[in-house]
Amino acid sequence: MPVDHLGIAVRSLSDALPRWEGPFGATGSPPEEVSSQKVRISFLEVGTTHLEFLEPTAPDSPVGKFLDSHGEGLHHVAFSVPSVDRKLAELASSGYRLVDQVARMGARGRRVGFCHPSGFGGVLVEFVEGGP
Amino acid sequence: MPVDHLGIAVRSLSDALPRWEGPFGATGSPPEEVSSQKVRISFLEVGTTHLEFLEPTAPDSPVGKFLDSHGEGLHHVAFSVPSVDRKLAELASSGYRLVDQVARMGARGRRVGFCHPSGFGGVLVEFVEGGP
Repeated sequence: MPVDHLGIAVRSLSDALPRWEGPFGATGSPPEEVSSQKVRISFLEVGTTHLEFLEPTAPDSPVGKFLDSHGEGLHHVAFSVPSVDRKLAELASSGYRLVDQVARMGARGRRVGFCHPSGFGGVLVEFVEGGP
Repeated sequence: MPVDHLGIAVRSLSDALPRWEGPFGATGSPPEEVSSQKVRISFLEVGTTHLEFLEPTAPDSPVGKFLDSHGEGLHHVAFSVPSVDRKLAELASSGYRLVDQVARMGARGRRVGFCHPSGFGGVLVEFVEGGP
């Protein structure tokens, strides 16, 4: 189950990206809006994985609320799985609390599902369908 | 610059590890103490990278203080580089604030160096020498 990406909450993509692009010798992807999550996203390729920068488009969005309580920083970790629905069902049957009961559409047109941080000791875990 | 590992702060390795070992089908490495950082560490292999679980051995340790202010959760991200000293020097000359001015010995006998989160929008970034 490889790491697909690492989510980082930022107040502004245009402020945050240049700090990473230089040292990592990579350029952030053109921002994509995921309106269901009220967020704008840009990816930066690092080795075989990606950093996913998340800028809220509204203060009452999940990332907006995270910034209010935690400030900028690491937000979640996403793992690639062959089937998000199967992984979520497996976790639910083992007693893990889920945010998404079934897969929904995420960034880059990929099926995703989130687990509640309570099951993973405070870490917000996402599963993404298909290879990174 | 591949992701070497993802650091996760926990109050107790023995409570945290089983929550991850089941869903990820892997077993945490025997805990190793890094006395300079007052921390006990166990690694869990996920794909080509590792999750590094950090349990403080004293409340006044860096991880102990992190737990007090943030609670359990994602703590840092570490990238593999050929030379930590060279990477730190490069960042310092670009104006990034460092925690370690030169490499020091970290877990698994590897040379490591940390940058201050202020340079990377709240993310604590570590560089580790050699391949993951």
